[in-house]
Amino acid sequence: MGVGPRQGAGTNTAPVRVALLGCGTVGSEVARLLTEQADELAARAGAPVELAGIAVRRPDKHPELPQHLLTPDAAALVESDVDVVVELIGGIEPVRTWLLTALRKGKSVVTANKALLAEYSAELSEAADAAGADLYFEASVAGAIPLLRPLRESLAGDRITKVMGIVNGTTNFILSAMDSTGAGYAETLDEASRLGYAEADPTADVDGYDAASKAAILASLAFHSRVTAADVHREGISRVTASDIAAAKALGRTVKLLAICERVTADDGAESVSARVHPVMIPRSHPLAGVGGAFNAVFVEADAAGELMFYGQGAGGAPTASAVLGDLVAVARNRVLGGRGPRESAHANLPVRPMGQTPTRYHVSLDVADKPGVLAQVAQVFANHGVSIAAVRQRDRLSTASLVIVTHLAPDAALEATIEAIGKMDVVHEVVSVMRVEGED
Amino acid sequence: MGVGPRQGAGTNTAPVRVALLGCGTVGSEVARLLTEQADELAARAGAPVELAGIAVRRPDKHPELPQHLLTPDAAALVESDVDVVVELIGGIEPVRTWLLTALRKGKSVVTANKALLAEYSAELSEAADAAGADLYFEASVAGAIPLLRPLRESLAGDRITKVMGIVNGTTNFILSAMDSTGAGYAETLDEASRLGYAEADPTADVDGYDAASKAAILASLAFHSRVTAADVHREGISRVTASDIAAAKALGRTVKLLAICERVTADDGAESVSARVHPVMIPRSHPLAGVGGAFNAVFVEADAAGELMFYGQGAGGAPTASAVLGDLVAVARNRVLGGRGPRESAHANLPVRPMGQTPTRYHVSLDVADKPGVLAQVAQVFANHGVSIAAVRQRDRLSTASLVIVTHLAPDAALEATIEAIGKMDVVHEVVSVMRVEGED
Repeated sequence: MGVGPRQGAGTNTAPVRVALLGCGTVGSEVARLLTEQADELAARAGAPVELAGIAVRRPDKHPELPQHLLTPDAAALVESDVDVVVELIGGIEPVRTWLLTALRKGKSVVTANKALLAEYSAELSEAADAAGADLYFEASVAGAIPLLRPLRESLAGDRITKVMGIVNGTTNFILSAMDSTGAGYAETLDEASRLGYAEADPTADVDGYDAASKAAILASLAFHSRVTAADVHREGISRVTASDIAAAKALGRTVKLLAICERVTADDGAESVSARVHPVMIPRSHPLAGVGGAFNAVFVEADAAGELMFYGQGAGGAPTASAVLGDLVAVARNRVLGGRGPRESAHANLPVRPMGQTPTRYHVSLDVADKPGVLAQVAQVFANHGVSIAAVRQRDRLSTASLVIVTHLAPDAALEATIEAIGKMDVVHEVVSVMRVEGED
Repeated sequence: MGVGPRQGAGTNTAPVRVALLGCGTVGSEVARLLTEQADELAARAGAPVELAGIAVRRPDKHPELPQHLLTPDAAALVESDVDVVVELIGGIEPVRTWLLTALRKGKSVVTANKALLAEYSAELSEAADAAGADLYFEASVAGAIPLLRPLRESLAGDRITKVMGIVNGTTNFILSAMDSTGAGYAETLDEASRLGYAEADPTADVDGYDAASKAAILASLAFHSRVTAADVHREGISRVTASDIAAAKALGRTVKLLAICERVTADDGAESVSARVHPVMIPRSHPLAGVGGAFNAVFVEADAAGELMFYGQGAGGAPTASAVLGDLVAVARNRVLGGRGPRESAHANLPVRPMGQTPTRYHVSLDVADKPGVLAQVAQVFANHGVSIAAVRQRDRLSTASLVIVTHLAPDAALEATIEAIGKMDVVHEVVSVMRVEGED
């Protein structure tokens, strides 16, 4: 790499050579923008940003790309004379090996690979640190929304206490549709697949794996700690019923799948991190409630900054390419200047709090026998588990009554045990809906 | 300045010495955070960030601050052995002279001074460029919301087409209150003053000067052009009536004071920038409509990224201090590495489009004579001015009828001329409300 530090370097500087790994929806947009916006990018980066090669599995399948740049050999391209590797293939291996090779050789890496980062960010960051190279990954969470950079840089002088957001478009589309049509989960998933909003195999989205990877990345950055996808408590949306949605509506709430990363302070002052993905009831007045369809939005709370929200498109070729290009310009600029961007740092090194010990609030909707004393019996079960009740609403029907209970904060395990005990009570005909509550005091 | 480029510099590096000019609400928060978060800041910046002096008008009035750091002589502090000047005094002179001195001596500057930047950003940027120093000003627009950095860095590979937002908390508080109470402007302003949401002299806020400064800063950054406050078309909220608000409500809309910065492409392909601040009707379903009270929010549209929104607290000591600290860490880091951050660039140098030639849409509410042919006569006046009508709603009352017209896009001057002509028509009893419309197709 012959590009040395130069202040105010113009476009006479040696070009920054870029290897592009993968050229699908996002990659082809990146390749297009690199060509079309070349002058603009050079002005911003301080040197021309030059596409040196594109690794694709089958070069003959890409007649639209400059043929001399194509190669099926990603490993060789990574080892060649390039300064930056942009990885848009996804998955763990062989990508992990290629990116470690690149970083160890001092090449900077820009990637959108959330699964890889959620599992191996420690290893990748250490390789980047050791070689003085950059590792940027804005596109890995919430597509086009500038989120990681503000967390890492703009809030660098602040103390983040919570990051909570809608980070998966497929599940948000399904829950939004269930909310507006009143239809059930299976039916709505079919409709989403038909419209192209859900993959043929929707597991990664609907079971929350995708959101959990993003939660791990967000928690690591926000709290300067190492949180992997395996540390994230994960519940998907497949058990959300039309009854849950109706129960939420009746209370002026809506159901969203949220990634929630929180700094939890114990009574003795010890801090830990809670990271979880699960369906949540939030008030319709909450800014996240209005985020519909395939959009993403992330709420951040910090000591000094207060509440912030970032909203935009979470996926798609062009939006994700915009995030990749932003990173690429930053990385190229750092190389021209001979420096590195702010590192991801795990210096706080907070432990991850198990879900059972994480304070949450429950909304519980029950069908109970319509006779005196039932509320007292049910309330006693909550009390037995040390769970305090915030609000109760009771409504008579024919032979049964509907009982809605919202709790105060309690350890999740205590709430879970309460629900289990209540489900076994003779006076309880049915546990209609159980859901955690966020966004209200 | 003895801090040279060092990769992976630890905290053994020479400290970055900071001069703080002004120590009011924001400054005292900055001073506090610099002390309390010293370790954290050093870890992020790569060197200790040290408060070298605080310039205040009357040192004896600040017993809460470390006395040995205080000085009434800001000019001498700027000239002393400091690396970064943080300016939180406000106003043009003598601040402009001090900051130019600092930049020319190669010291980096962090400022929240929107009035200064909206008028002299060209001069300040050139001084920074010439000396290889940084000029950062995240806190000047939308307080704690990380907005300028995403515009400048995250979207560096994208093409921004529009930036539109609520950037003044006082006027948003007043309009939100008018919307919920139905009260008039004067009455609501009194209430806002009583509650401390409006200054004793509210001119800068209610007449749109504050928002116009911010629009100039946003337009300059987003379109890489020089836009000053004087280039921004400015209308405040003092002429917004209870009738306007009621008319908006009747149509499922609400009224907001927006700063609107747009890239306008003429028929011949020539690009220009429109920058304006005025009251606007937006649909209640628009994300900006739900931004209430003293909050700020800014919508950004870019070719690849699509629609983005940034939301948070626009003012206040702690939120603004958070933005200042973020900048300070970045500037300190750049010094430790021996480089500079991405420069504000005016390379596109687009001309500013006069308001009269800017395409806008009007909502017009009229009381007209209740007799046949009135709509035809009114519609003819629109047609005579080349303004095409998108929607009409007519409702009979006793002897008058209410006529509501929403236009398609037309040059603002044509719309203004239309309204003037309509006001003179015999069949028009009263022009009840005229307001521009945004956020719908």
